[in-house]
Amino acid sequence: MPGASEHDLIAWIRGQAATNSQTQVGIGDDCAALRFTPGRQVLVTTDLLAEGRHFRLAETTAEAIGRKALAVNLSDIAAMAGTPVAAFVAVCLPAGSAAEVAQGLLRGMMPLAREFGVSLAGGDTNSWGDGLVVAVTLLGEATERGPVFRSGAKPGDLIAVTGRLGGSILGRHLSPLPRIDEALKLHEVAPIHAMIDLSDGLSSDLRHILRESGGLGALLEAGAIPVHADAEEMARRDGLSALHHALDDGEDFELCFTAPAESFRLWKQALGDDFRLHQIGTIRAEPGLFIRLEDGRVEPLAPGGFDHFLRVDTTDPAGTNERPS
Amino acid sequence: MPGASEHDLIAWIRGQAATNSQTQVGIGDDCAALRFTPGRQVLVTTDLLAEGRHFRLAETTAEAIGRKALAVNLSDIAAMAGTPVAAFVAVCLPAGSAAEVAQGLLRGMMPLAREFGVSLAGGDTNSWGDGLVVAVTLLGEATERGPVFRSGAKPGDLIAVTGRLGGSILGRHLSPLPRIDEALKLHEVAPIHAMIDLSDGLSSDLRHILRESGGLGALLEAGAIPVHADAEEMARRDGLSALHHALDDGEDFELCFTAPAESFRLWKQALGDDFRLHQIGTIRAEPGLFIRLEDGRVEPLAPGGFDHFLRVDTTDPAGTNERPS
Repeated sequence: MPGASEHDLIAWIRGQAATNSQTQVGIGDDCAALRFTPGRQVLVTTDLLAEGRHFRLAETTAEAIGRKALAVNLSDIAAMAGTPVAAFVAVCLPAGSAAEVAQGLLRGMMPLAREFGVSLAGGDTNSWGDGLVVAVTLLGEATERGPVFRSGAKPGDLIAVTGRLGGSILGRHLSPLPRIDEALKLHEVAPIHAMIDLSDGLSSDLRHILRESGGLGALLEAGAIPVHADAEEMARRDGLSALHHALDDGEDFELCFTAPAESFRLWKQALGDDFRLHQIGTIRAEPGLFIRLEDGRVEPLAPGGFDHFLRVDTTDPAGTNERPS
Repeated sequence: MPGASEHDLIAWIRGQAATNSQTQVGIGDDCAALRFTPGRQVLVTTDLLAEGRHFRLAETTAEAIGRKALAVNLSDIAAMAGTPVAAFVAVCLPAGSAAEVAQGLLRGMMPLAREFGVSLAGGDTNSWGDGLVVAVTLLGEATERGPVFRSGAKPGDLIAVTGRLGGSILGRHLSPLPRIDEALKLHEVAPIHAMIDLSDGLSSDLRHILRESGGLGALLEAGAIPVHADAEEMARRDGLSALHHALDDGEDFELCFTAPAESFRLWKQALGDDFRLHQIGTIRAEPGLFIRLEDGRVEPLAPGGFDHFLRVDTTDPAGTNERPS
């Protein structure tokens, strides 16, 4: 709709927006009015994507950005073992192509919203001369068992991740698969103690669980880290190891969680072949994040710092590594 | 904190953030976890303020922008007769002064958050080379009587506003007083049928009530419109009438609502001198928004279009009026 007014655009969005039974009133009033299951906690997350920081509109599409903006928020609801309910989208659109970009964003978002039963229940549409900004706030609700926090890990817990890691920069980072269903299925069968979604990389994000759980430690097993084929491709390109990429790369959007061995036993029993988990290590009472290499040596693992001791090509000058130490 | 990292900044914000008993977990996990009163609708609103569109950072302060960003969302909760609960703030900060601006925004927001019992329960902090963006999503809950929608007006309802209108551009627009307490007090005593907060101006915003209530009409009484002293000052400056400014100016953030005469009788009885309402007209079954001038003539009232027939200085060229027609 070239030349469309903001009013026309909002009317179009209102016509396209997904809805659901929990959304009593969505777009079109001062507030949305939502109904949640009595007694369940309401879960809320906000992620903002901005031109030049998270994407370049010239190098991708508004559809891809819209999809990702919703997907990263769905991943946060997954990390609480919650069910998503309603999304709110505030945007700053480029003035010259506001309606086209808005429509592209929505076309990217709506299939994912429908897949996960999420309504588009409100937002704020602006255009300006600066870069595209897409801020999504997603509401969900906890299951009967309650939300899974980062703070619930216990010494002796096993640590697991839901998929292969590393190298998402090759393209996967744009279309993450939110692990909503996986988290709900696991949490229904047996308790998860602590959980986080992997956005900054395993070596960084696992530390949040350790810190929020009262200063615990963890020992990872290098041989058990599930390395994605993209991590191997990145290793061929930059000379760092594939394991480095699996530990330090961001934007995998897999879940990392801890649970007692009994939960793992119950999951194997109940879920059989659906049980696609990778056990990667153990929570310990002693603080500090460590990794046991395949030769048996145990090394400290710094956040985003695996490169410092496992570079494949040790002749590379240190300065070529742009990751923060 | 010049040179502070994003991590330091978030730790500082987490230390400053207001909280409340409904916020089980706020900043620091993948999602916030909130508790709402069982059976009450959850109300959600999002408003985004952007550099150059809603403010110029060079001409105001980060404190004022932060305060306003929260206040306009509180006004939306007021318009549903709801109680505010938790705010989520996503920002794009100017890269050169990210920490200072973030701290200013928060200093502006927190007193207002505490005044209305709102927690700062999450957000997303980014910095970039473009303009400042502040996107606030505010959650609230309806009272036992339920939310007041725009869609509930009935023929015969009286129309009222909560304060004097016009000329907010002289400064009031930066520090609106959200009418939360007023709306709760009224709605507790007697039903409000339909309500909206005045952001685009009475002549525009009242039309939303008329349209959403099934295509009703309204007749306003020119002599009853409460004209703010700022509207009179604007009239002296630009030659339009003060009434024009009261009808068409935006950003008053007063509430406009409709209710049966019986509600007004009960409010007068119960609230006495606290009853600071201005009755301005009547809802009618016949579509169309009209105004009765003080000389008895009835004229149609276009959105933002009062200037077309009530310019005080009729010798002014039409081109000097920058309001949309």
